[in-house]
Amino acid sequence: MPLRLAELAVRFGCELRGDPDATVERVAPLAEAGPGELTFLANPRYRRYLAGTRATAVVLDASAADTCPTSALIANNPYATYARIAQLLHPVAPTMPGRHASAVVEEGAIVDESAWIGPLCFIARGARIGARVFVGPSSVVFANASIGADSRLVARVTICEATRIGQRCVVHPGAVIGADGFGHAPDTGGHVKVPQLGAVVIGDDVDIGCNTTIDRGAIGDTAIGDGVKIDNLVQVGHNVRIGEHTVIAACSGISGSAVIGRRCMLGGMVGVVGHLEICDDVAVTGRTMVSSSIRQPGVYSSGLPADGAARFRRNAARFRTLDDLAKRVRRLEAGSGTGEEKDHDDE
Amino acid sequence: MPLRLAELAVRFGCELRGDPDATVERVAPLAEAGPGELTFLANPRYRRYLAGTRATAVVLDASAADTCPTSALIANNPYATYARIAQLLHPVAPTMPGRHASAVVEEGAIVDESAWIGPLCFIARGARIGARVFVGPSSVVFANASIGADSRLVARVTICEATRIGQRCVVHPGAVIGADGFGHAPDTGGHVKVPQLGAVVIGDDVDIGCNTTIDRGAIGDTAIGDGVKIDNLVQVGHNVRIGEHTVIAACSGISGSAVIGRRCMLGGMVGVVGHLEICDDVAVTGRTMVSSSIRQPGVYSSGLPADGAARFRRNAARFRTLDDLAKRVRRLEAGSGTGEEKDHDDE
Amino acid sequence: MPLRLAELAVRFGCELRGDPDATVERVAPLAEAGPGELTFLANPRYRRYLAGTRATAVVLDASAADTCPTSALIANNPYATYARIAQLLHPVAPTMPGRHASAVVEEGAIVDESAWIGPLCFIARGARIGARVFVGPSSVVFANASIGADSRLVARVTICEATRIGQRCVVHPGAVIGADGFGHAPDTGGHVKVPQLGAVVIGDDVDIGCNTTIDRGAIGDTAIGDGVKIDNLVQVGHNVRIGEHTVIAACSGISGSAVIGRRCMLGGMVGVVGHLEICDDVAVTGRTMVSSSIRQPGVYSSGLPADGAARFRRNAARFRTLDDLAKRVRRLEAGSGTGEEKDHDDE
Repeated sequence: MPLRLAELAVRFGCELRGDPDATVERVAPLAEAGPGELTFLANPRYRRYLAGTRATAVVLDASAADTCPTSALIANNPYATYARIAQLLHPVAPTMPGRHASAVVEEGAIVDESAWIGPLCFIARGARIGARVFVGPSSVVFANASIGADSRLVARVTICEATRIGQRCVVHPGAVIGADGFGHAPDTGGHVKVPQLGAVVIGDDVDIGCNTTIDRGAIGDTAIGDGVKIDNLVQVGHNVRIGEHTVIAACSGISGSAVIGRRCMLGGMVGVVGHLEICDDVAVTGRTMVSSSIRQPGVYSSGLPADGAARFRRNAARFRTLDDLAKRVRRLEAGSGTGEEKDHDDE
Repeated sequence: MPLRLAELAVRFGCELRGDPDATVERVAPLAEAGPGELTFLANPRYRRYLAGTRATAVVLDASAADTCPTSALIANNPYATYARIAQLLHPVAPTMPGRHASAVVEEGAIVDESAWIGPLCFIARGARIGARVFVGPSSVVFANASIGADSRLVARVTICEATRIGQRCVVHPGAVIGADGFGHAPDTGGHVKVPQLGAVVIGDDVDIGCNTTIDRGAIGDTAIGDGVKIDNLVQVGHNVRIGEHTVIAACSGISGSAVIGRRCMLGGMVGVVGHLEICDDVAVTGRTMVSSSIRQPGVYSSGLPADGAARFRRNAARFRTLDDLAKRVRRLEAGSGTGEEKDHDDE
Repeated sequence: MPLRLAELAVRFGCELRGDPDATVERVAPLAEAGPGELTFLANPRYRRYLAGTRATAVVLDASAADTCPTSALIANNPYATYARIAQLLHPVAPTMPGRHASAVVEEGAIVDESAWIGPLCFIARGARIGARVFVGPSSVVFANASIGADSRLVARVTICEATRIGQRCVVHPGAVIGADGFGHAPDTGGHVKVPQLGAVVIGDDVDIGCNTTIDRGAIGDTAIGDGVKIDNLVQVGHNVRIGEHTVIAACSGISGSAVIGRRCMLGGMVGVVGHLEICDDVAVTGRTMVSSSIRQPGVYSSGLPADGAARFRRNAARFRTLDDLAKRVRRLEAGSGTGEEKDHDDE
């Protein structure tokens, strides 16, 4: 359904420079868009493509508008505005009520009549599936789990016993929510399994990526706040708590009982050690290991960047004696008189 | 079923300080437990909650008993004792024999009559499912695989051809055991697939986490010893051997043909390079890369901890010239006479 | 079916030293092989087992042939030649045409009559399944996805909407191809979902490991070239492009819009930051973080190797003041006259 630029400008609060009657039907990348297509410019890295775009309209900010060769929708936050327009042009199909003949729904499962239970799903007794929920093919929802209204389990999702998922959540294929946490008490001759008895409680508007795993609490619950977005292949251990609107990129791991604040951003492959706290508004860059609590908002890192292998190897060898090197520098300073009187870094 | 503290004390060899006739019905966290609930104190980090607990009883060690405001069950290993009591209070439901009508069991599969084959499972010909085994929904067991007595495939597990799993194992949702290892011989114009012909052989009392992958041997088997516990999202490459009672935390990866000893502990996100050996009783802290064999028991690390991003970036830039810095220090020492005559770190 | 060494030598272009009429039936490891078995020596690490082998024949290179105690098939590339012989001795069973009675194939799916649709699979309308394709148990193929001839979805694979997979590909259990990328535009009060509208396009002869995830493009496609081999538990973000014959080991993560060249090799746990480029013929060793573009072929690293934990901790503490240490060395040099006049590393 083509939409007029004038209508988009009004609806999304943009300033329009260009033809109010031009229409767009779909979105496309800046460098590839053509007539009838809308695109956007948010990352300065792609600004070089702006002059050559053949899109009917570009969503961008005021600083880029002057060099836009076509109609411009000027927004304070072009990426978010683009996202909203793209949602309008490419709506998600509404959930069709019903259940596939091949689905297995146990007696005692409570499935809203507006929900869809897809092919080859298993819904156990006591599970509650809310209004307009979409349960995609081959998903498993165990006993007493609940899925809030308008949530989507895309496909092949596992929701374990007593997990509670809020409204408008999306769980991507292969995710496992609510399985046993990793609790094994060391004892003579091996380990004793620690029963994992808590639940996973997930707020509203949460996205969980493909093959991500979120473990149930050992005792007490694992809790994910409203608006949290978790990417693919992320591990969230038992009794972790994650605050509202925090974003976690792929391949990260959060160890048991860690508490992460609100509006945090964790890059890819970040590791968070257990039983510590990260306060609100902390950004952690990719591949950082957080091994002690962070109590001040800010940006934190610990990932070394790639270097030529031979040079890296030489430097890594020196790292093994860095403490010694520092002591040698201290001695040189003492001998030369250039050092400070007291060096807190040396013992 | 409520249990008397006196009975627990006798059964688990604890000293009881408090009311022998008090009863507990379930467990709860130290800070939240109330009447009828048992809790525990093992991690000193949580000791501050002890004075305020309203639990009926606390399992703890002798050093904490004096400050316990309620009945105390004093144990040498409070965490393991708590685990055993929790198992008693919250038993796993016994496996109900039978098979769900929607399961597909091929002719020639040998399923013990006391086992349960859940909804939408597929069990191929030649597979052997032992006594009281629980095969959860949507699991796949390929030809000639075998699952030992009392093991549980929780849900959506894939057990590939000829995998052998011992007794009392637990395999969590999404795990894949016995798929092809990563064997591709480089050749002119691409790679030649190396047939993966070995099996995975898993001992007794092994736990395998959600979405963990354990590859079959290329030639010869991949072998996991008795009592090994593997967390979520761990990769175990072909022909790896892991010794008894070793524990591997989430997001770790063990490359092909590595050999890991007994009673080792690998933290989260640990990487082990292929074709090396780690001896018994080695602990590797989170995010360490083991790139050469470890022949002495002990604790090993290589994960840098998080720092403020700006400071980290400056230090990482210096790391790129660390070898040069060390040489410069050597020259200074030579000039000042403070250095040792011979520095083995310099060429 | 036993094969004569003379026949193998001719077929695979090897020089044969030994008995041309000896036959082999299967392969086995160097240290364990016996009569009727063929083995190989490629990794020098295993050369110590050569003298003791009881195999009927060994594939090896000329340098090792003199010490071979049994028949030798001398090849320029013993590993690739071994792989080809092993394929011949242990052929993959051909796909049996048909579909299992429990599979759900929607009307409008186009399934070649020579393909196999396994138990409990779901194939949506508009999906195209090519000649001799094997769709293993519990796999899901969404609408308008296509699978090229002779490809195999081993089991429990999810192929999302509009994904296109080439010929002779293998997708291992638990892999998810074509799910939504991680696109959430930050805005006041939370994030706006950015519709993910591109596809995943995979070439021919590509292998995708267990539980690996490859996201669809946000706008434009994610593209994997011919002959690419991806191991288990790898994350490939939206709009990533990977060139022909590149190999990516387990637990690696490629962030969105990264472009990786041809014939690259990424070790295990490598992280590649988004929106950068790696040129052709780059090798990245295990656990390296690539955070800026690489424009020269070569080998790159950034993973620190394990050290004793106490020593590592001391060195890591010094790393936190490395920039300061470098400045102190500069000052010492200025005082002693040993430094160079201009040190580009200092501000």
